[in-house]
Amino acid sequence: AQFLMDMIDTTTELGKGMISMYEKYDALRFSGYIQPQWQLAGSKGASSYAGGDFGAAVNNRFTLRRGRIRVDYERYNKEGMPVVQFAFQFDGTERGVFIRDFYGRFLETKFNLFSLAGGMFARPFGYEVNLSSADRETPERGRMSQILMKTERDLGAMISFEPRRPDHPLRFLKIDIGAFNGQGLTSTTDFDSHKDIIGRAGIKPQKLKRSGIILSGGVSVLYGGMQQFTNYVNRMGTVNGHPGFITDSSLSNAGKIAPRHYYGADFQLKIPNGKGRGYTQFRAEYIRGEQTATAATSETPGIIPVGSDGKYLPLYVRPFDGAYLYFIQHLGSDKHQVVVRYDWYDPNKKVKGMEIGAPGEGLTPADVRFNTLGFGYLYYANEHLKFTLYYDMVKNESTRLSGYTDDLKDDIFTARMQYRF
Amino acid sequence: AQFLMDMIDTTTELGKGMISMYEKYDALRFSGYIQPQWQLAGSKGASSYAGGDFGAAVNNRFTLRRGRIRVDYERYNKEGMPVVQFAFQFDGTERGVFIRDFYGRFLETKFNLFSLAGGMFARPFGYEVNLSSADRETPERGRMSQILMKTERDLGAMISFEPRRPDHPLRFLKIDIGAFNGQGLTSTTDFDSHKDIIGRAGIKPQKLKRSGIILSGGVSVLYGGMQQFTNYVNRMGTVNGHPGFITDSSLSNAGKIAPRHYYGADFQLKIPNGKGRGYTQFRAEYIRGEQTATAATSETPGIIPVGSDGKYLPLYVRPFDGAYLYFIQHLGSDKHQVVVRYDWYDPNKKVKGMEIGAPGEGLTPADVRFNTLGFGYLYYANEHLKFTLYYDMVKNESTRLSGYTDDLKDDIFTARMQYRF
Amino acid sequence: AQFLMDMIDTTTELGKGMISMYEKYDALRFSGYIQPQWQLAGSKGASSYAGGDFGAAVNNRFTLRRGRIRVDYERYNKEGMPVVQFAFQFDGTERGVFIRDFYGRFLETKFNLFSLAGGMFARPFGYEVNLSSADRETPERGRMSQILMKTERDLGAMISFEPRRPDHPLRFLKIDIGAFNGQGLTSTTDFDSHKDIIGRAGIKPQKLKRSGIILSGGVSVLYGGMQQFTNYVNRMGTVNGHPGFITDSSLSNAGKIAPRHYYGADFQLKIPNGKGRGYTQFRAEYIRGEQTATAATSETPGIIPVGSDGKYLPLYVRPFDGAYLYFIQHLGSDKHQVVVRYDWYDPNKKVKGMEIGAPGEGLTPADVRFNTLGFGYLYYANEHLKFTLYYDMVKNESTRLSGYTDDLKDDIFTARMQYRF
Repeated sequence: AQFLMDMIDTTTELGKGMISMYEKYDALRFSGYIQPQWQLAGSKGASSYAGGDFGAAVNNRFTLRRGRIRVDYERYNKEGMPVVQFAFQFDGTERGVFIRDFYGRFLETKFNLFSLAGGMFARPFGYEVNLSSADRETPERGRMSQILMKTERDLGAMISFEPRRPDHPLRFLKIDIGAFNGQGLTSTTDFDSHKDIIGRAGIKPQKLKRSGIILSGGVSVLYGGMQQFTNYVNRMGTVNGHPGFITDSSLSNAGKIAPRHYYGADFQLKIPNGKGRGYTQFRAEYIRGEQTATAATSETPGIIPVGSDGKYLPLYVRPFDGAYLYFIQHLGSDKHQVVVRYDWYDPNKKVKGMEIGAPGEGLTPADVRFNTLGFGYLYYANEHLKFTLYYDMVKNESTRLSGYTDDLKDDIFTARMQYRF
Repeated sequence: AQFLMDMIDTTTELGKGMISMYEKYDALRFSGYIQPQWQLAGSKGASSYAGGDFGAAVNNRFTLRRGRIRVDYERYNKEGMPVVQFAFQFDGTERGVFIRDFYGRFLETKFNLFSLAGGMFARPFGYEVNLSSADRETPERGRMSQILMKTERDLGAMISFEPRRPDHPLRFLKIDIGAFNGQGLTSTTDFDSHKDIIGRAGIKPQKLKRSGIILSGGVSVLYGGMQQFTNYVNRMGTVNGHPGFITDSSLSNAGKIAPRHYYGADFQLKIPNGKGRGYTQFRAEYIRGEQTATAATSETPGIIPVGSDGKYLPLYVRPFDGAYLYFIQHLGSDKHQVVVRYDWYDPNKKVKGMEIGAPGEGLTPADVRFNTLGFGYLYYANEHLKFTLYYDMVKNESTRLSGYTDDLKDDIFTARMQYRF
Repeated sequence: AQFLMDMIDTTTELGKGMISMYEKYDALRFSGYIQPQWQLAGSKGASSYAGGDFGAAVNNRFTLRRGRIRVDYERYNKEGMPVVQFAFQFDGTERGVFIRDFYGRFLETKFNLFSLAGGMFARPFGYEVNLSSADRETPERGRMSQILMKTERDLGAMISFEPRRPDHPLRFLKIDIGAFNGQGLTSTTDFDSHKDIIGRAGIKPQKLKRSGIILSGGVSVLYGGMQQFTNYVNRMGTVNGHPGFITDSSLSNAGKIAPRHYYGADFQLKIPNGKGRGYTQFRAEYIRGEQTATAATSETPGIIPVGSDGKYLPLYVRPFDGAYLYFIQHLGSDKHQVVVRYDWYDPNKKVKGMEIGAPGEGLTPADVRFNTLGFGYLYYANEHLKFTLYYDMVKNESTRLSGYTDDLKDDIFTARMQYRF
């Protein structure tokens, strides 16, 4: 050992260059993935949470769903404990080049327990929001995750508790809590002074003895909101004896904060099928709470909501819930896998089905519940290449709203390749 | 050998780190180039296919024509045959940051003959479209290539036949065939359900015995089209005894596919001038077919063509042809080179010169033929740095159209540096 | 040495791969930094040169001020003299992905004195404009630098004189002179044919004997301008016995060049405090000259200035001056540092205070002088991580202009982390 060190260190230019190169590149890591895909929709112009709505004349398309290049940098102290980590991630597709993760993390080395992160990174809420699409078995996150926390990330600062010494008694625990702007990557800047507080307490994967079963889970909360820019705030009540929106137009409404409060729990179970035969996995997550948006949509606004007349729109506060369930099974080999996911998102728990669409109640397609059942087959050709075939059966409630009296023809078939390094 | 391996593998941290770094970076390749240039146009506000139109008050400008960073990843199996390749390429200039190549290729290793590519990559049509600007001797592709296939690339999937074993009898052959959206990088999404089928069969460079002359060539076809969004489709016919556009307004037109059919052939000849003295080269390509666009332009539309009144525009189908001829000569040294290129693009073969511009025939500047004769001198300072001086003499037909009765003052001089690694 | 070389070169695949990797990566250097920050403004909607204006309802915000990834490539000849250098730098934040430095430099090796750069790079003017934000002790450049030369860089070509041999008698000298478009990164293309000539002659850091004090400085000139697109050009004169703008409406004005002439001088002084105890530093720069912009702003226009009615705006030529003074002190350790900066920018030297705002004189908020006093504390946790706390006291003249009769509430507090590799 010493022999090689000495030799490299003190003699040839090549040797010196190698040492210098080693020091330059050792802490650096490049990674990336590309997801080209072809999709077929149940009808032309289908609305979709599987990669965005289809054009009015389009029922099939090639897209580059994601194209990611990431640079990670990590430094350790002499005891091998991390001191600083940071990441730059770009997304490049035919739709443009944008950032994804751009953040740094400072880790204290006195207790090796706490860290402080700042920048753009995934909100510490739930499981699916934090699972990279490169690792996920389904092409997209569920409808609920996309509506509540589009592009997953937000700009803020977060303190984490996560013991880093292998012998720490709380080694199984991870707690994150942070403050965030609220809009994430859906706009270029914050539009109010209010910040979202988001936190999760989770159990990291624990192997249950003998059985080899691996269990993990957590509870999450997002306690945030957005400023009300008009006097008009709509909440669910009773209209003509039916559930409907009631407008509160107190002058004092403007300037107050409308709620965005989410409460969630998730667990993951991984059962080994035997050496080289993969796993059986179950995952579930349930979220409920209050979401503020507008009449036409329940998606978290990225900018102050504004109408076609240029005026600020009244806000709508909806009690929602939603969930997803995954069943994932290897087919006797690490290379073949099937996945079934059922998820629902009910934007407005106070009404359902044919109750929606009566005159005067102020309900819109944004109040319609969707259930999605998806089936997929995955083939892992090698560690760099994955093929996915996935079919999403998207089912909406039948309501009395025009266009939503029956199930929409919005099933989506996706054939995707994923290249990854 | 074994000695070094053992030593590195089993002893110092540095040794282990070196191995690990080697594995991280060996399959990865970074490359890039920058093309800053200064240009002088024959008049202020000149229209140009040499880097885009000049501003109304501008006859000279600095631009960053291209700024490319590319990451390639490639894996081989134990027999040294490629298994997977993928590429990420960004273009960054003062005009923004966009993707260029973002694709992956999966190569079967049973026959080592076929591969499947998916993502954003150059259309498999012709020679010039597939030749990188970093290698090209002229600053820009010819007018025809830019009008028909702007930014060269499209989103799709392609199957290739290309024997990879050195002893395969068809080793000289390469056949590509793929399906593509049609818009390429000119828009963010496909606007119809119709796809373009594109293919090329080519002979890879073959050394003719004794002489050392290297010959290559191919034939290409693009069989595509675009949906008609109105009832109005214009095709060439006879108007008042002269050639002109005739409007077909059958109600059944809307929804049908207007043709984009290109047929091309190309060859390349490379004659060695002797050791260290470079080459004499000839290249030629001819393309003809039918192109669909609008009254005002024959460029392939990136979005559904729409007028200033917000209504969909009627389509125009034109029979076109075009070609280019290159003569490239080293000046007694690898470092000095001259190039002459003649190219033409005739967007509408049914009319010429003074026939264009008569009342009622519906012809526009988009029907005017342009011939371009360009001269260039290249100096290769080293393998990373190239200087180009190039003068484009752009000549249009004289017509009876206002503004096109004489040759436009749109010659362009370009002085370019290219930095490359 | 030879032993290792031989062994690597001629035996194992690993050895060969290592050599090949070394050659691939040795000339390449990756670097980058991320600056997440939280800011609090003196009032909602505060205008600011500390990272841009605050939203109307915002007095605090998280932002990613800068997110930079840079690739450098450098080649040397056998004598160890640089031959070619080039750089690609991207900025990625929640506001988008853009280029910063994208340029190349060709260095002659006959005299090792001259070099030619081309592309997008920092204007060779002054000291602050060329000091990277990663190294600067204050979060932002002064108001003057931002107004005159936003984003610092411009597109052009530059010749530099800088002796590269260690024994050259003029080794202390660096002279740059170049021609540039004028808009820099504030627009996607040049809007006129006129170019800015920019140059600086500087003394590189010189150690004064015994004392160890390090001194540097320079003088700079920007001699440029912009085309006048209307007949109306306003210059300072006397209106009703007071200073005010007088409109020159000669028909011959259109097409002439309005001046952008800056003259500056700067110096930097660095006094060592003793081993491991850091430095005491002073920096100063003064710039004066003539700036052309519009009634509403004195910022260098990126596009032809146009009013809300779509017509070209008349230009305003203002005699300006401005300066900054830095005092920087380590606190007995390399890890702790304080900084005080005082800077002013007087956009219009011909008027001051209560003279501004009388009817008929045509003065606007763009003519108001601002003085800024900033205090900061910096903690360098390690070579990759820096924390900055900074408070900017921004003080405008009291004038008779509505909204500018008193000091605006636009002080800004910034808490920033900087991750860097």
